[in-house]
Amino acid sequence: MDDDVPLILTLDDTGSSASAPLDDLEREELPNENGGSYDVISDASSPAAGDCCVQQGSARHNWEMNYQEAAIYLQEGENNDKFFTHPKNAKALSAYLFAHNHLFYLMELSTALLLLLLSLCEAPAVPMLRLGIFVHATLELFALIVVVFELSMKMRWLGFQTFIRHKRTMVKTCVLFVQFIEAIVVLVRQTSHVRITRALRCIFLVDCRYCGAVRRNLRQIFQSLPPFIDILLLLLFFMVIFAILGFYLFSPNHSDPYFNTLENSLVNLFVLLTTSNFPDVMMPSYARNPWSCVFFIVYLSIELYFIMNLLLAVVFDTFNDIEKRKFKSLLLHKRTAIQHAYRLLITRQRPSGISFKHFEGLLRFYKPRMCARERYLTFKALNQSNTPLVSLKDFYNFYEVVGLKWKVRKTKSELPRTAFVIFKGINILVKSRVFQYTMYTVVAVNGIWILVETFMLQGGNFFSRNVPWSYIVFLTIYGVELLLKTTGLGPVEYLSSGWNLFDFSVTLFAFLGLMALAFNMEPFYFIVVLRPLQLLRLFKLKKRYRNVLDTMFELFPRMASLGLTLLIFYYCFAIVGMEFFAGVVYPNCCNTSTVADSYRWVNHTVGNKTVVEEGYYYLNNFDNILNSFVTLFELTVVNDWYIIMEGVTSQTTHWSRLYFMIFYIVTMVVMTIIVAFILDAFVFRMNYTRKNQDSEEDNGIVLEKEISKEEVVGIMELYRRSSAATETAQLQKIVLQMDKYGQMSTLFLGRRSRTKSDLSMKMYEEEIQEWYEEHSRKEESQVPSQEPASASNSSLKPLSLRQRSHTVI
Amino acid sequence: MDDDVPLILTLDDTGSSASAPLDDLEREELPNENGGSYDVISDASSPAAGDCCVQQGSARHNWEMNYQEAAIYLQEGENNDKFFTHPKNAKALSAYLFAHNHLFYLMELSTALLLLLLSLCEAPAVPMLRLGIFVHATLELFALIVVVFELSMKMRWLGFQTFIRHKRTMVKTCVLFVQFIEAIVVLVRQTSHVRITRALRCIFLVDCRYCGAVRRNLRQIFQSLPPFIDILLLLLFFMVIFAILGFYLFSPNHSDPYFNTLENSLVNLFVLLTTSNFPDVMMPSYARNPWSCVFFIVYLSIELYFIMNLLLAVVFDTFNDIEKRKFKSLLLHKRTAIQHAYRLLITRQRPSGISFKHFEGLLRFYKPRMCARERYLTFKALNQSNTPLVSLKDFYNFYEVVGLKWKVRKTKSELPRTAFVIFKGINILVKSRVFQYTMYTVVAVNGIWILVETFMLQGGNFFSRNVPWSYIVFLTIYGVELLLKTTGLGPVEYLSSGWNLFDFSVTLFAFLGLMALAFNMEPFYFIVVLRPLQLLRLFKLKKRYRNVLDTMFELFPRMASLGLTLLIFYYCFAIVGMEFFAGVVYPNCCNTSTVADSYRWVNHTVGNKTVVEEGYYYLNNFDNILNSFVTLFELTVVNDWYIIMEGVTSQTTHWSRLYFMIFYIVTMVVMTIIVAFILDAFVFRMNYTRKNQDSEEDNGIVLEKEISKEEVVGIMELYRRSSAATETAQLQKIVLQMDKYGQMSTLFLGRRSRTKSDLSMKMYEEEIQEWYEEHSRKEESQVPSQEPASASNSSLKPLSLRQRSHTVI
Repeated sequence: MDDDVPLILTLDDTGSSASAPLDDLEREELPNENGGSYDVISDASSPAAGDCCVQQGSARHNWEMNYQEAAIYLQEGENNDKFFTHPKNAKALSAYLFAHNHLFYLMELSTALLLLLLSLCEAPAVPMLRLGIFVHATLELFALIVVVFELSMKMRWLGFQTFIRHKRTMVKTCVLFVQFIEAIVVLVRQTSHVRITRALRCIFLVDCRYCGAVRRNLRQIFQSLPPFIDILLLLLFFMVIFAILGFYLFSPNHSDPYFNTLENSLVNLFVLLTTSNFPDVMMPSYARNPWSCVFFIVYLSIELYFIMNLLLAVVFDTFNDIEKRKFKSLLLHKRTAIQHAYRLLITRQRPSGISFKHFEGLLRFYKPRMCARERYLTFKALNQSNTPLVSLKDFYNFYEVVGLKWKVRKTKSELPRTAFVIFKGINILVKSRVFQYTMYTVVAVNGIWILVETFMLQGGNFFSRNVPWSYIVFLTIYGVELLLKTTGLGPVEYLSSGWNLFDFSVTLFAFLGLMALAFNMEPFYFIVVLRPLQLLRLFKLKKRYRNVLDTMFELFPRMASLGLTLLIFYYCFAIVGMEFFAGVVYPNCCNTSTVADSYRWVNHTVGNKTVVEEGYYYLNNFDNILNSFVTLFELTVVNDWYIIMEGVTSQTTHWSRLYFMIFYIVTMVVMTIIVAFILDAFVFRMNYTRKNQDSEEDNGIVLEKEISKEEVVGIMELYRRSSAATETAQLQKIVLQMDKYGQMSTLFLGRRSRTKSDLSMKMYEEEIQEWYEEHSRKEESQVPSQEPASASNSSLKPLSLRQRSHTVI
Repeated sequence: MDDDVPLILTLDDTGSSASAPLDDLEREELPNENGGSYDVISDASSPAAGDCCVQQGSARHNWEMNYQEAAIYLQEGENNDKFFTHPKNAKALSAYLFAHNHLFYLMELSTALLLLLLSLCEAPAVPMLRLGIFVHATLELFALIVVVFELSMKMRWLGFQTFIRHKRTMVKTCVLFVQFIEAIVVLVRQTSHVRITRALRCIFLVDCRYCGAVRRNLRQIFQSLPPFIDILLLLLFFMVIFAILGFYLFSPNHSDPYFNTLENSLVNLFVLLTTSNFPDVMMPSYARNPWSCVFFIVYLSIELYFIMNLLLAVVFDTFNDIEKRKFKSLLLHKRTAIQHAYRLLITRQRPSGISFKHFEGLLRFYKPRMCARERYLTFKALNQSNTPLVSLKDFYNFYEVVGLKWKVRKTKSELPRTAFVIFKGINILVKSRVFQYTMYTVVAVNGIWILVETFMLQGGNFFSRNVPWSYIVFLTIYGVELLLKTTGLGPVEYLSSGWNLFDFSVTLFAFLGLMALAFNMEPFYFIVVLRPLQLLRLFKLKKRYRNVLDTMFELFPRMASLGLTLLIFYYCFAIVGMEFFAGVVYPNCCNTSTVADSYRWVNHTVGNKTVVEEGYYYLNNFDNILNSFVTLFELTVVNDWYIIMEGVTSQTTHWSRLYFMIFYIVTMVVMTIIVAFILDAFVFRMNYTRKNQDSEEDNGIVLEKEISKEEVVGIMELYRRSSAATETAQLQKIVLQMDKYGQMSTLFLGRRSRTKSDLSMKMYEEEIQEWYEEHSRKEESQVPSQEPASASNSSLKPLSLRQRSHTVI
């Protein structure tokens, strides 16, 4: 609602109209209705380039407020928080600050996890973790009260109006309400009723700050749904047609149990969609008339090989499109955030840029952990022009630069001569091709050795007391290699490579395994089994594998969040499954159904031996949440899922099938999204590699900045005046270091790993400029016509606090 | 080898240097070593714009040769035949002409099919088609002799040198040789030996002219193989690691038959890759220790959900890349072909373009069926400038224009007034939204009706003697609709839409079904069953479905060729399977194996009833080629494939598993390619739609050209002088038509359906220009340095016949 207050101030981001008077005088004249504690007066100070005069208390205080608000804007930009949730007054600000730190986030997360984990101990509980109803209901109530507290903080920060308009929060409130009532009912009745609503507990987890990626995934899934559903309908439509056809064709055959009614026909063709009953469903009719296979071949060709792939194509296409649009909107959101922050940091006297003093003030709030040196380096890295001010254009790179980790570039070794030669020698040796390929050969030989050894074993007790000599030999070689590499490259450089880290941990595991063998610690034997993982090193040999594995590591966070999203769906279905199907399946439960064999458990005597005939499928039940998860995983893998479905159905009603079918469709959606994601990520990455074949070798973003001694002394002076002792001491150390080596300046390297966003930036380079232009054009068109036509094309909306507090309150 | 003869002639395609002397005088001076019958003298005539003078016999003859060679070049461009197979002399030309017509192609195809179909009648034959050894061996010999004849024609055309260098032909020759010997051996011994080489018979089909698409698919599959194999190795590598791990972890459990040896462990994890044995393989260990499910979950997550998708991503990416490169090379190949043809059609006096006379000569050879009017319209459509000559730049559009079908655009109805009003009224009615939606409602009601009806039936004899009245009612409605549409739109326009054609045929089928019911013709009852297909019409309602179905139709030829490629793989495997596993599987064959139940066939008596317990899997055998195909299809669908594998393995040796595993991997390759193809095609199409949202509605390429009466008379004159009576008569008719309606000109519409190539042209618009430039630059760089620097940038290599015959012979 505040986004469209009229524009009263325009700034020229190029700095060319620095002499133009600013129109925000009126802001100053507005009385501060909130007690002056959260006030924005951006022009109260009298800054000069590199200035360092001690400011008056109130002016300084106001600057601090500006810094804080700018930092909040930048955080909102980074986290993709909408600006209408921006704190509007002092009370809101304190609530905002309270609700935006890791302590609060952790509380949020642990409450959500507690609520989710409660299902381990509730009614159909895991045997070992069973708790009394009184205990778990009290725990639940406690967790719910914490959630109430969290929500009230959020309400304080957002205000009632915004709170109500925020959909996710409203849903959460409703769920909370329902849960509360149910928990009290349970406590009063001292018995659990059918609490399907427990499935909604996931929402507390999804709403956590740390689960932003999950929320994004869910949004993406819901956005991909409309085209998905369209194609799904096509799929189901063909299914119905074929079901009618199949019923007409095969029901006269009385030995065919799959098509005797229309319902059976439908169910079996649905299962056939998953291929899970394939040759079986065809067999009775095939045995009678060989040509009936045509029906099944046509059905599978259309449904499985065509429409299912179509589904993937449509989702993939939508996914692609959404990814790009999401990237665009995130980029523009960040840009707007930067504009807002910039507005709060420039002074009236020098509207063409931000001085270091103010930039430093911002960083104090935005990244409190950053040391003085890094702050200055970030400022220098941003500042493209050689003026002492950072212009808006430079400031736009804020997010790219602020993540850099700065390090002094080593110019000279500090070691004595002979030691240096030895280390250098080892370094050369370790980096040589001969050494590397020797190691690969060793690993390959080891691999073959393990394979042959295992093949020769053929059962028996292979965890013999005496450690095999081959194990020791290979481990020694790996140990020597590890030692050589660590000394040759230095431990820091050695461990900075993911591959070396992998080598290190595998060798460590092998060593632990040896210990376990030597000291006969049985529970750790499984470590020995991890030996073959050494072989993974062989995949460094080929570029494609390196590429694949690098991409895999890059994708890992995203994959994990997708996995978590899947788990959340699992949780919902597990709760529902437990409420309806707990204890339904047991050995020999389904002797009347078609899948009786799979549930059989017979203990009969043949001759003088007892033979146990086990179908094992009774293990795939919903008796507690862990079992449910395993069962749901089996349903996800799809193979033979109909046995589980039929087993449960035979013990309950026909309508149980709905649960399984819906689960199949939901996992199909999620799995298709996962496939689309992997496809998209890899194809994107490969296109990127193809496009930037030259710059492909570097692994990360690297920036170089030189700082002269005078600069350091200058900043030190600045800090000293604002009496920041620790910062001054830090900088003093740099000066001393420089003096020691007689340098006039030090070269710093800023480094960070490349993210998907960086790749996208490069891929869409041309389009991004168009987006920016379009964006600023749109903003301009929102500006009322009383604005002078000469307004710069990056005009900013005045979203500063005072303005808003004036309009809202 | 001829591609790099020195350039002796350059042409300026812009026509600006028309006055520059041509350097091909020396061509004329070369003596004709081949008896003058296949001679190229491109400047012997004295053409003028619209000239029509009767030429001297010899000059004319030479022009005919040029026309023919130009037409051959254009055909080679279209069919992507390499230019080094271009006929080099008169003998080669006659062989070329003999081997390049549909009669020859059909012979090729039918011989190949005969050879393939022989396997229906050979040793493990389909019972009904069994033939004596003498009969089928003689048939085979006969077919092989025909192939020899074909090959000798090809050799005549290509010459021995080129013939040997042509890989595919050489492979074919070798296979032919082997087949010949084997056929004779069979004939002599009067008994079939293990003839695995029969699997190679496919090559005769692949080499057919009509199977170009299959060859392209195979090439694409082989090109996608290297990255595929890389990822496959990764997959197998993880499989081996997990097999060792699984063996160590689960072999102490003696009730677990899946991991008791390393071999079993490997095989079961391979099967698990296909999920085919999923919950079962986990169950024994899961029953003992619930945490062992982690092993399987991790394995499946890595292998199935990650690496398998990676496989798809890599293949998809490679496929994308190959598609683009293929399009590029095809485009450039066509361009070169057009350049060659152009060189042969221009005259010395007017080197800036092709006159209609020569263009007409070309078309007479290139498209003999085209009528005079169409030839002239094609010429006009090509000619962008208003000169009487088609320049090279215009001529580049040859392939796009030559496929157009030309029709007179109707300007006035020829009907009397009242009839016209009625038809117009029906037309408006039929095209109205109300009518369409009424029909959709009817179809929907019909669908629900059928569903309810079928549901109520529940078995019993539903083909009752009396036709249900609903059937008649709906059929009447559809009939009326069909009638209205045909009269309203006119039969031609009605049937020109694919959807209407579909409506028509479904209604026709329904009518036939009614007849079958009414006259009680039992074998045709299945037609009744096709009624629900009417419901497909509902998918016209939504744009996405129309898009999907349109794309489906566009893709159909390509899909069919992919299916054929798959069938060829099936054939190879079927032959090998039959040679090794025919008769191996029968009821109760595998009672000692783990899959005994599936092969059981017991006929036991319970009480006084005979109960047949059938496992049916013995039906999935390799006893004849049709059974083998069904079995292979079941293996392709993957579910429960291990039952077939284990059944066969238990009757033969362990090594049989190799056959099934290799088949799985091969089908995985082909299926992945199919998925990649569908993905690529749909994503491409959707991108295209997004890019051209405005021009999306038109369905095809449409061109408009006006011809004035004078022009027609002019061409008529031209034909009359060359005494072409039929053409003159055709044109006469047009003139009469114009006279009748008093028009001075007639508007013609050229129309053809859009192909993938058209879409690609539009998608890669910008890149295509780059390709052209790069291509002509490359050609230039191949030109020896003695060329003047001012040579135009579309310099042509002189690939004309005489030049080559001079260098080769």
